[in-house]
Amino acid sequence: MDFFRVQTTHQVKEMLKEFPPLGKEDVVLENSLGRILAEDIISPEDLPSFNRATMDGYALRAKDTFGASEGSPALLEVQGEINMGERPSNEIQRGGGVKISTGGMLPEKADAVVMVEHTQVIDETTIEVFRAVAPGENVIQRGEDLKQGERILEKGHRLRAQDLGALAALGMGMVNVYRRPRVGIISSGNEVVPIDSVPHEGEIRDINRYTLWALSIESGCEPFHLGVARDELEDLQKKLEQGLCKGDVVLISGGSSVGTRDLTIEALNSLPQAEILLHGVAVSPGKPTILAKVNEKTIWGLPGHPVSAMVIFMTLVTPSLWRLGGCTNWDSPHPWTLKTKVSRNIHSAQGREDYVRVKLNLEAGKLIATPVFGKSGSISTMVKGDGLLRIEMESEGIQEGEEVDVWPF
Amino acid sequence: MDFFRVQTTHQVKEMLKEFPPLGKEDVVLENSLGRILAEDIISPEDLPSFNRATMDGYALRAKDTFGASEGSPALLEVQGEINMGERPSNEIQRGGGVKISTGGMLPEKADAVVMVEHTQVIDETTIEVFRAVAPGENVIQRGEDLKQGERILEKGHRLRAQDLGALAALGMGMVNVYRRPRVGIISSGNEVVPIDSVPHEGEIRDINRYTLWALSIESGCEPFHLGVARDELEDLQKKLEQGLCKGDVVLISGGSSVGTRDLTIEALNSLPQAEILLHGVAVSPGKPTILAKVNEKTIWGLPGHPVSAMVIFMTLVTPSLWRLGGCTNWDSPHPWTLKTKVSRNIHSAQGREDYVRVKLNLEAGKLIATPVFGKSGSISTMVKGDGLLRIEMESEGIQEGEEVDVWPF
Repeated sequence: MDFFRVQTTHQVKEMLKEFPPLGKEDVVLENSLGRILAEDIISPEDLPSFNRATMDGYALRAKDTFGASEGSPALLEVQGEINMGERPSNEIQRGGGVKISTGGMLPEKADAVVMVEHTQVIDETTIEVFRAVAPGENVIQRGEDLKQGERILEKGHRLRAQDLGALAALGMGMVNVYRRPRVGIISSGNEVVPIDSVPHEGEIRDINRYTLWALSIESGCEPFHLGVARDELEDLQKKLEQGLCKGDVVLISGGSSVGTRDLTIEALNSLPQAEILLHGVAVSPGKPTILAKVNEKTIWGLPGHPVSAMVIFMTLVTPSLWRLGGCTNWDSPHPWTLKTKVSRNIHSAQGREDYVRVKLNLEAGKLIATPVFGKSGSISTMVKGDGLLRIEMESEGIQEGEEVDVWPF
Repeated sequence: MDFFRVQTTHQVKEMLKEFPPLGKEDVVLENSLGRILAEDIISPEDLPSFNRATMDGYALRAKDTFGASEGSPALLEVQGEINMGERPSNEIQRGGGVKISTGGMLPEKADAVVMVEHTQVIDETTIEVFRAVAPGENVIQRGEDLKQGERILEKGHRLRAQDLGALAALGMGMVNVYRRPRVGIISSGNEVVPIDSVPHEGEIRDINRYTLWALSIESGCEPFHLGVARDELEDLQKKLEQGLCKGDVVLISGGSSVGTRDLTIEALNSLPQAEILLHGVAVSPGKPTILAKVNEKTIWGLPGHPVSAMVIFMTLVTPSLWRLGGCTNWDSPHPWTLKTKVSRNIHSAQGREDYVRVKLNLEAGKLIATPVFGKSGSISTMVKGDGLLRIEMESEGIQEGEEVDVWPF
């Protein structure tokens, strides 16, 4: 495997373009939160479909109030009341007003609403209006929210609460979205035991099973478990084949030792269609990362150290899952980073991207990032941290007080 | 209801302290992502439970390498190999080294690991070491990750992927968490129809059902639907009682008109135990908000306008749900806001908190927030937005170029 050069995250993202998005499916609106749209949403109608009052008051013709003031109110004839949810039966007559509630439909010829606070009832059929209203005042016009034919949401967009609201407003009870990637999780290593067994001396419990599970869920996937593979080719091969059969992606973690890494490569090479795209990435922690392609399925060989596996997941696996999941912005899974100042110098080697766990504190309105030191085998360093600070490849480190980007956990 | 004064968000958060957290339950580790811990987690053991190698190489006594260099290597006797997951049978002898892989258990008396790259095999039982290693080098010590008796996570903490990893490392397959709040959702208003019916003129489809559903899920709750209530006391009462019977929280949205608001108050007053705590909040959009308490259950009367209902949900309902859900930082649901500069002047009235929908753009590494204008009845303004910009109560507005906090959606 010596012919593999360590690749940059940029190069790895280029490789990910070889994996096309998965298929599509229809889901009911209620289940579409966080899903990725598989088609553009074009409004089939105007919203609202009629001119609506945005205040309680009287619907009227604005020009009948021109010049009205506290000292010289306009007199209007009350021509009835609009019931909520009903179409007004008559158009408004000159010099007339119709009682209306917020959300009510304006009658024909009415072009504004005067707030009830700016009127006074004189008798059953007469009110005084103390303020001139402009045409359109306190009214949301037909099509003002959404116009028929307008593109509201784009294919590849991740649906948020308000997006569900817009789809509801248009009566779209089903949504065409990309299928969620199914992600099979394999932990490997003779020293790794399931958490419900008592580890003997020399053994450790399986951490990655849970962290990779949780990160897969957060990346919009459906994870499933393939168990702990022993350091034996046959066992790893069997689990890998099961994973490829059932899933779109297989994650093999472990293999922090050279022996296990070689085993992962050997298991991949035993698959006729496997193509190893990456063996080593310029990221710390996380260098011994493997990426392979079997037909259109993705296999990630992740480092065994829990922190390294999480860092590679967040920097590379998440983009790969988002790409499979049809997301347009798959290559920047953390678009909004936090601007922080670092509390002390942090050294970094040139030629690799460094990810440092940091604790965040708010001091006088400024976010301060303090590195959490510790080995990449120490899950506690991730637990104590509030986010990851990235140090660019070209950088030799960060000076105390320098401004840096942090991805919050 | 004239005796109610409009309250500030700060005052409302004080009111929320009257609602205690809900009960507790045990869940399996795999289902605990995003749940709130109901007890402190104290490590029952040292992690790792033995000294582990962090590199592939030879376990040895550091002092046997003192002075070693390329020019003058130390000679070590190879005293066997450590199998992964096994306890080494013999302690290391002076001048000896034992082959070890990353994650392997160090034998007794060994205190460091020399990387395989810094050694050369001379014959079956002898290696040369080209570098001195310090005691502890390339070793993670027993208890270095987590110490027995150490508090790892605090009650009230929301569990993240790495927290699941730490719990797994300690063999904690069940986690004691707070119960999720059950949230009943009522939409109200004669003009509101379910999205699967065709609205007549004057009617609109039920948006809040979906936005409040999605926001409830994002706030860690179990929402359920109570349907659309007509503007009739009996219908609203019935749905409210159903909600209180089945849920911990009931959200009644709609009532943007005075008539419907009065109906909500009337329905609340008809419940013998109901205590109305709030009727009007100094937030725009969202002023006509109601908060009531029935025994220990929470009722929110939210504005009917979709944007107003969402803003009040994000600013006040989320804290209330997080408090019920046992979260320690319930009163600041958006701890990490984005620092942005605004692209133009934004006016705001003093005496109320203003929430402005903004679009975010990255210009030369700086985040720029541009307001999305539009009425609070327009769901499209939330769809076009990337976040909410808060203007403090005392402020009369924001100047172009000023730095402000934005909560990203």
